[in-house]
Amino acid sequence: MTKKILAALAASAALSSPLAAQIAPEKVAALRDAALKDDLAWDITEGLTTEIGPRQAGSEAEARARDWAVEKLKALGFQNVHIETFDVPWWERGDASAEITAPFPQSLTLAALGNSAATPAKGLSAEVIGFDSMAALEAADPATIKGKIVFVTHRMQPAQDGSPYGPVGQIRRAGPSVASKKGAVAILIRSIGTDHHRVPHTGVQAWTDGAKPIPALALANPDADQLERVLKRGKPVTIALTVTARMAGTRKSGNVIADVPGRDPNAGIVLVGGHLDSWDLGTGAIDDASGVAITTAAAKRIMDAGQPLRTIRVVWFGSEEIGLFGGAAYARAHAKEKHALAAESDFGADRVWRFSTAVKPEALPAMKPIAEALAPLGIVTNRKNGEAGGSDTDDLQRSGVPMVSLNQDGTRYFDLHHTADDTLDKIDPEQLRQNVAAWTTLLAITANDPTEYGPVTPPRE
Amino acid sequence: MTKKILAALAASAALSSPLAAQIAPEKVAALRDAALKDDLAWDITEGLTTEIGPRQAGSEAEARARDWAVEKLKALGFQNVHIETFDVPWWERGDASAEITAPFPQSLTLAALGNSAATPAKGLSAEVIGFDSMAALEAADPATIKGKIVFVTHRMQPAQDGSPYGPVGQIRRAGPSVASKKGAVAILIRSIGTDHHRVPHTGVQAWTDGAKPIPALALANPDADQLERVLKRGKPVTIALTVTARMAGTRKSGNVIADVPGRDPNAGIVLVGGHLDSWDLGTGAIDDASGVAITTAAAKRIMDAGQPLRTIRVVWFGSEEIGLFGGAAYARAHAKEKHALAAESDFGADRVWRFSTAVKPEALPAMKPIAEALAPLGIVTNRKNGEAGGSDTDDLQRSGVPMVSLNQDGTRYFDLHHTADDTLDKIDPEQLRQNVAAWTTLLAITANDPTEYGPVTPPRE
Ligand SMILES: [Zn+2]
Ligand SMILES: [Zn+2]
Repeated sequence: MTKKILAALAASAALSSPLAAQIAPEKVAALRDAALKDDLAWDITEGLTTEIGPRQAGSEAEARARDWAVEKLKALGFQNVHIETFDVPWWERGDASAEITAPFPQSLTLAALGNSAATPAKGLSAEVIGFDSMAALEAADPATIKGKIVFVTHRMQPAQDGSPYGPVGQIRRAGPSVASKKGAVAILIRSIGTDHHRVPHTGVQAWTDGAKPIPALALANPDADQLERVLKRGKPVTIALTVTARMAGTRKSGNVIADVPGRDPNAGIVLVGGHLDSWDLGTGAIDDASGVAITTAAAKRIMDAGQPLRTIRVVWFGSEEIGLFGGAAYARAHAKEKHALAAESDFGADRVWRFSTAVKPEALPAMKPIAEALAPLGIVTNRKNGEAGGSDTDDLQRSGVPMVSLNQDGTRYFDLHHTADDTLDKIDPEQLRQNVAAWTTLLAITANDPTEYGPVTPPRE
Repeated sequence: MTKKILAALAASAALSSPLAAQIAPEKVAALRDAALKDDLAWDITEGLTTEIGPRQAGSEAEARARDWAVEKLKALGFQNVHIETFDVPWWERGDASAEITAPFPQSLTLAALGNSAATPAKGLSAEVIGFDSMAALEAADPATIKGKIVFVTHRMQPAQDGSPYGPVGQIRRAGPSVASKKGAVAILIRSIGTDHHRVPHTGVQAWTDGAKPIPALALANPDADQLERVLKRGKPVTIALTVTARMAGTRKSGNVIADVPGRDPNAGIVLVGGHLDSWDLGTGAIDDASGVAITTAAAKRIMDAGQPLRTIRVVWFGSEEIGLFGGAAYARAHAKEKHALAAESDFGADRVWRFSTAVKPEALPAMKPIAEALAPLGIVTNRKNGEAGGSDTDDLQRSGVPMVSLNQDGTRYFDLHHTADDTLDKIDPEQLRQNVAAWTTLLAITANDPTEYGPVTPPRE
């Protein structure tokens, strides 16, 4: 960035940010530090995971979770608390079992992937062909795959920013369709996860045009290790598989919305939230009870500190896991409202380590006080503008809404992600509090600063 | 110990240990250090867990494991390799599922305990009564339990020596009978384990006289946490349970025996080994493929170094998990043979940290060279004679056979013990090698030292 641009930015920031309307740094610091003693985020996370537990998109449990959320948000004093429903496709997991029948008979631990087809009622049995990457599967001659069970094994490494999930996750997202089009009768993938436990990682995959749905499942990592070893023996390997998963029409899902009305209706909404639904295997503690809990606890703190300039809206999105249905429904329903800023918490409950932005360049100086107020929490700033976002806020972002992210440490996130092991005991209350402090800081400043952070054009790809 | 006794011990040791027959310390050190590069123990552990996998006592897989063992032990050059069969009761796990039906509907992850009864085919549903310890269950008025599902939750803490397993494990071993006698329709215990994963810990329990078999299961630790939280809400908690476990007659099991014949048939046998069977949920890597692998690898090293004075016998015991049937059968069949010493490896594959003895007092000086040769491996000596033993060698020990133990670090053993997570990936090859080095050291000395280590009287309680 040149000095000239920097000067222009500073001038623009000065113009659009009358200091009088902003919150004093000392007040932000006081709110931030008080939030380090927060108990509300734990209370919400504990309550939702205990009193509802697993809450698959479109399930009766997700509906109970919406009612639970409404009651909780009203009790906390939020305004305009309501549910906005929408329809989602309903996929039923059913049962899944698999065993190596030759050369070394033994059972395998696995879980069906979202939208997996069933086997015939009596199961199917076929020889296994293994691939060590998505690229190897894509390069394979269909003649070698036809009639076989495809196995794709590629271990994902842990990373603070979770970046391997993008490329490695393609095996789950796209592998089933590729295998099906090449004539596979089923596909088993190594779990997209970094753990070493017999807890397979589920997750959604969508059939591309022309791909006939086949059984698509993830082996737990130790089982993928085992199948690799068995294949390395060089003898033909046969697996018998029985899966009863099925698509079964549509069901109701919904978003739960709660507001802290601002003093100036024209100043736009600061939208924060996470997603209410979880996969069915765990209780969705880190994915994403903690996200709705952290953002709600922070909003509650700002509400209690006096009416903010801007309306703060907390959204507990429904049906994120099966295809971002809640985010899309919200963006459609609220396209005409002015969103000053949006931010989502959906990467667990470990410490926030970085602050990222996706705002218009002229608004960058207004990010500086946020970065400064976050620094005492051990949070660094991502110098590259444009790297913020969230799955449920994707459609908002595409429409030009500016975004920020409080990036959580994801080193152990993919140990637990989409597994039965996503349970309350994995959450460290101290790290959860640091999250609340970071979000409280973010809201204290952005809900009280009239700076226009957007629109952001061109929108992110 | 008085100076007088010490002097007597020294004299006795000098008498019974002609130095000429013993192995030179330099040779022991060379064998020990070479074993730190061992690959055989890994090869056996990898082979048994991959090519057989789970091998429940009495199962067809355990029979395959015996054949696998015979082939492996013969290929390694052991003599007198054979199987000695015996009958065991056959318990079939079947399926088990449970869900909280009120007040917060959600499913629970659990596993039936050995010898658990089934529910009626349609399942059973009952209110839950919780206890936080075995003592609380024992103290409870049967009127409060009758017709209910008992839940006993008591978290086990990790410990290097695994000592909490004795007292906490009583909940599993004795809890079901106590609950049944008080009129419970089923019992759920918190897994006897130190982990935080959705992998329940199975294990055997035996019905005491007059206790009617009922469904008896272990909840995974996160599920026990959850049920505790649900109960703490203070509303009546109902669980629906379906279990198809059953006793189904007897099956064949067996021990696999292999010798390294010694130069002096009258010098007695040094018996080492572990158990071949595993629970059905995991592949029995740490319990106890590693035990048979470590002891076999060490025996092979001594065999290859030249004929020892004493016969070294390696035993891969069958049906340990369901009630020490293999150890009892061995002791019966070999009661007339002279066992100079016995030692078992059955506490995982982590580093040996301590050397323990249970020999006659006069033989203690002969333990000193062993302790000295083990010290460079980071192994300390348990100063209290009488604290060695092993589950499969229990009957031998009761008959007066002296014992030593190479105590492994059990800090993470009960994270994995009796779970689906007991798989090869949990074994650290370097720690496994340290085990082989320790056992090689032990065998190098004891198989070449004519000192009489026993009989030990009175036998251990
Ligand atoms: Zn999520
Ligand atoms: Zn064992």
